Amino acid sequence: MATFSCPISFPFRCSFNGNHNHNHRVDIKINGTHTGPIKLDTLNEIAAVVKADSTLANVHENGYICQEKIRQRIPTQKQLVDPYRQGLIIERGVGYRQTVVIRSYEVGPDKTATLESLLNLFQETALNHVWMSGLLSNGFGATHGMMRNNLIWVVSRMHVQVHHYPIWGEVVEIDTWVGASGKNGMRRDWLIRSQATGITYARATSTWVMMNEQTRRLSKMPEEVRGEISPWFIEKQAIKEDAPEKIVKLDDKAKYVNSDLKPKRSDLDMNHHVNNVKYVRWMLETIPDKFLESHQLSSIVLEYRRECGSSDKVQSLCQPDEDRILANGLEQSLLENIVLASGIMLGNGHLGSLGMKTYGFTHLLQIKGDSQNDEIVRGRTRWKKKQSTMPYST
Amino acid sequence: MATFSCPISFPFRCSFNGNHNHNHRVDIKINGTHTGPIKLDTLNEIAAVVKADSTLANVHENGYICQEKIRQRIPTQKQLVDPYRQGLIIERGVGYRQTVVIRSYEVGPDKTATLESLLNLFQETALNHVWMSGLLSNGFGATHGMMRNNLIWVVSRMHVQVHHYPIWGEVVEIDTWVGASGKNGMRRDWLIRSQATGITYARATSTWVMMNEQTRRLSKMPEEVRGEISPWFIEKQAIKEDAPEKIVKLDDKAKYVNSDLKPKRSDLDMNHHVNNVKYVRWMLETIPDKFLESHQLSSIVLEYRRECGSSDKVQSLCQPDEDRILANGLEQSLLENIVLASGIMLGNGHLGSLGMKTYGFTHLLQIKGDSQNDEIVRGRTRWKKKQSTMPYST
Repeated sequence: MATFSCPISFPFRCSFNGNHNHNHRVDIKINGTHTGPIKLDTLNEIAAVVKADSTLANVHENGYICQEKIRQRIPTQKQLVDPYRQGLIIERGVGYRQTVVIRSYEVGPDKTATLESLLNLFQETALNHVWMSGLLSNGFGATHGMMRNNLIWVVSRMHVQVHHYPIWGEVVEIDTWVGASGKNGMRRDWLIRSQATGITYARATSTWVMMNEQTRRLSKMPEEVRGEISPWFIEKQAIKEDAPEKIVKLDDKAKYVNSDLKPKRSDLDMNHHVNNVKYVRWMLETIPDKFLESHQLSSIVLEYRRECGSSDKVQSLCQPDEDRILANGLEQSLLENIVLASGIMLGNGHLGSLGMKTYGFTHLLQIKGDSQNDEIVRGRTRWKKKQSTMPYST
Repeated sequence: MATFSCPISFPFRCSFNGNHNHNHRVDIKINGTHTGPIKLDTLNEIAAVVKADSTLANVHENGYICQEKIRQRIPTQKQLVDPYRQGLIIERGVGYRQTVVIRSYEVGPDKTATLESLLNLFQETALNHVWMSGLLSNGFGATHGMMRNNLIWVVSRMHVQVHHYPIWGEVVEIDTWVGASGKNGMRRDWLIRSQATGITYARATSTWVMMNEQTRRLSKMPEEVRGEISPWFIEKQAIKEDAPEKIVKLDDKAKYVNSDLKPKRSDLDMNHHVNNVKYVRWMLETIPDKFLESHQLSSIVLEYRRECGSSDKVQSLCQPDEDRILANGLEQSLLENIVLASGIMLGNGHLGSLGMKTYGFTHLLQIKGDSQNDEIVRGRTRWKKKQSTMPYST
């Protein structure tokens, strides 16, 4: 057992000179006793070593650094705190919490974070969770065991509920953790909470499976990988889904169709795939602007069917619930009640307590082929009326 | 004069329970003496007050928070440190430094930060600089004096040099500061540096003027606003530009033309304008993919002419330097040398020491009108061959 009390001067430089000719010193002091394999690194020491190391041996003579390893510094052991990422291991050592400020470019014209930004933050915190675990290999969230087996993660389903959108400059805490999903899958959940009040803003759950990077076929979870990740599994669920709603497949008769979609270079992620956040953008862009201006997405369910390559031509179909039921007034009011009821369930009481009507859309993204179309992802979105819109400044 | 030594437990929760049944405590201790109007808030206390305040009075009974002020907590006085933003006032009290981790969704397929991500981080750090100054009003970087005069900031010119792109997970420090530009303008500069090695990765400078929000006409700088911002001006320049290169205006004969550009809802920023980062995306997307795959942007100059509204149809024109000179072999090699020479100047020695050839493009974004076209922005980009490309995984 080792007792440590080590001053760390991160994430701030130790001293700074203000107009007032005083030196302020910001010290982070870590007190505690510690046993077992977990090591809380003194980051200043690492930085010093890296600095010396890279200045001497790992920098090209023209000033460029060549070693990715030194620049990324992916931990090889479990870390409990990361001051740069403002991350922290929680939940008895297996969950991850990151404190995040909503940035100016993550919000839309109404100053609230966009759904895309929230999805990006989910991806980021999930990867940082793996980063902190010491299991991260050189891939996009893949563990060492996965790399040895040529496996990558692919998402098969995602469900996000947004009760309230954080605003520009707001500080939020994002918790994420993983659990088992069937025999070969993994569930990953998230919670976004206001740092100031503790109120839950959003919940999300997702299911992941492994795919062979070469054959592009789904794979069982090798025992080696199960050994790595199963100690991190917990039962807790961000969204209880007893009987997940089935999403119907849309056809050419869908009310809104956008066929002009072509992935661009900037849409590709580290896995050289069109990132799934891009899919969501394509889905939402197919909904008329007029509706988007006055409504806020309260939930989205995505069922991923296949990958989309950079040369595919994509079509986005979208069908509002209302249109299916307008023919019959009675049926309409019946369906509205069903939507409202499931809204109550989906919103964990929030939508229900507001007594607000929600609006539903069914979505489909597909690859437009010569002889047939291939489904990429099916989606369901639910929306509620915006309570207040910021005044337009232009 | 007050002496303070106040323990702040941010940005981490004070204690956490690991698998190992130990309580670790992360304390940030701030020691120093302090005079004058600057107050370094004990954020825990603020959080506690906000928590109590919002739980009691400022939360709707359905659980929603109504007061933007409490959620944003824009400082009304100058702050020296912001643990959430990992920001720090430097340069004798007038500059700003923020430590940033390059996130997974800010990089492209080659795992390096995209130019768009760098531009987003420039915007973010600039706004956080104003945030820390205590001058930020409720607009997009506007000061209290600007708000009283109905003024907003508009960028008139931007010049970015990227010597080296940070990679996923890399920790960088971004410095930003402001200076005078003529009688009525402001210059804002940035430097991006590797946190581990101190090597400068990128430099940028920009010029800003004020515009009346209602009339959309440029405005002189009111004395009231000069009084607010001029104490923050310093002489230091990230890029020395003795005689800025003039950008020629392209016409319909440009080699690459993309006319299918229409701003989308997701392209609008808090000012309800198409964000200038979007302009850069449109410019770069007009360059052929084949070139983009094997080359890296080393510098970009943007001259902004007018705003683009959400209903405008935009055309992007692009002309490579090479094509203008292919007709004459002698002239080509001559021009290559000139490009190389200016590359040396632009790269602050980096490109020069590599002895690498650079490639140039001229750009124009314009609004396609019935009778005439209106220029939005002219651009010049310079590129160099990628030294190594990551292997394609698919």
